[in-house]
Amino acid sequence: MKRHGVRPALAEQILRLSAFHTYPAPGVLIGAFMVDYALELLGASPEEKLYGVCETPKCLPDALQVMARCTIGNNRLRILPIGKFAITLNAPAEGATAEAVRVYVDLAKLKEFPTIDQWYANSPSYDKEAMKDRLQDEIIAAGRAILSFERVRVTVERKKKWRSVTCPCCGETVPDYLIEGDRCGACGSRKYYTKI
Amino acid sequence: MKRHGVRPALAEQILRLSAFHTYPAPGVLIGAFMVDYALELLGASPEEKLYGVCETPKCLPDALQVMARCTIGNNRLRILPIGKFAITLNAPAEGATAEAVRVYVDLAKLKEFPTIDQWYANSPSYDKEAMKDRLQDEIIAAGRAILSFERVRVTVERKKKWRSVTCPCCGETVPDYLIEGDRCGACGSRKYYTKI
Repeated sequence: MKRHGVRPALAEQILRLSAFHTYPAPGVLIGAFMVDYALELLGASPEEKLYGVCETPKCLPDALQVMARCTIGNNRLRILPIGKFAITLNAPAEGATAEAVRVYVDLAKLKEFPTIDQWYANSPSYDKEAMKDRLQDEIIAAGRAILSFERVRVTVERKKKWRSVTCPCCGETVPDYLIEGDRCGACGSRKYYTKI
Repeated sequence: MKRHGVRPALAEQILRLSAFHTYPAPGVLIGAFMVDYALELLGASPEEKLYGVCETPKCLPDALQVMARCTIGNNRLRILPIGKFAITLNAPAEGATAEAVRVYVDLAKLKEFPTIDQWYANSPSYDKEAMKDRLQDEIIAAGRAILSFERVRVTVERKKKWRSVTCPCCGETVPDYLIEGDRCGACGSRKYYTKI
C-alpha cells in the first residue's frame, strides 16, 4: 500500500477492516477508500456519532462498521438492497431529514481501471483466480480516483416506541410492532428453522 | 467481570465487542455470553467459517460479527426482524439446510434476575438512568444462567447468480434481481435521499 501512496493511518485501518471481514475482499478495499473520503468530506471523525446508509449488503457495510463505527447492532447503519456501491454518511440531526454526503463508485471513472470495471460489472471476462491480485493492486492504486460524491438530504429514522407482547403460538415475547396478525414473525413469515 | 467468574479470554472478547459497538450495551453483553455458548455447543472455533442468524437487529448482531466472524459484509450473517433475543449458528453445509444450534434468552429463567427481566420486557418500571449499573452487573453475574438452547435445522441461502443491468432512470448499474419493474430500487421503493 505504501508503494501506491496510501497514508499509514489509512493502511492500518484497511488491515483492521480486512481482519474483521476475514479477508481483504475487493469490496472492502474500495469501501475503505469510500468511508475515508466520506469522513473527510463531512469534516467528521469516527469518534463522533455518525449515521451511515449502505446501498448494498455486499462487503461495503463492513467498512462503515469498522471505520465510521456505524454498526448494525448500534442502530447507526441502515442497509438498503439497492445494489449500488454507494454510501451516505451524516452527523446527528434534529429534524426528519439530515444533510449527508453520498460517495459512490463512478462508472465513468471505472473506464480508466479495466480490471475493476470488469469485476464491478460481473463481466464473464473477469477471471477471479487469474485476476484477483491485479484487481487488488488496481483498487489500491486507484484509491479515490474511481469515486465521486454528492451532497444529499436523507430521511432520518427514529427509534420506535414499543411494548412487549406474547405470541400466542410460541409463547415468547416480541415488540408489538413486529406481530404479524395473530402471531410473531418466527411463527409466521420469518420462519427459518425447524426443531431437530 | 473477574469477580463474577468470567474467564479471561471471554472478558477480553467482551471488551473488544464493546469497543466495536462503541459502548457495553446490555444487549451486547448478553450477546457475548450467547455467542460464547453457541460456539461451545457447536464445538466450533471462530477461526472456522460459520454462519449466523440473528433474530433481532438490536445489539445482538454485533456479538456474532465480532466473536463468530459472521459479518453483514462477508455474507455469513442473516438478520431477521423477528424481535427475539435469539441466534442460530451453524457450520457450512452442502444441502438446502444445515444443522444449527439456537441459543435464546429464556423468559422463564429471567424470573431469577429481576432487573434483566424488567429491561427485557421494556417495562415502565425499568428506569435506565437509575438502574443501568445494576442491569450490567446482573447480566455479567448471570452469564449463561438466563440462556437455553435447542438443536435446529435452518434453511441455507445460496449466493444468487446475477448480471449487471443499467437502470433507465438514473443510468447506474445494479444486479438484475434488484430491478423493480422499469427502475432500480433507488429510483423506486428504496428511495431515501434527495440531492441538495
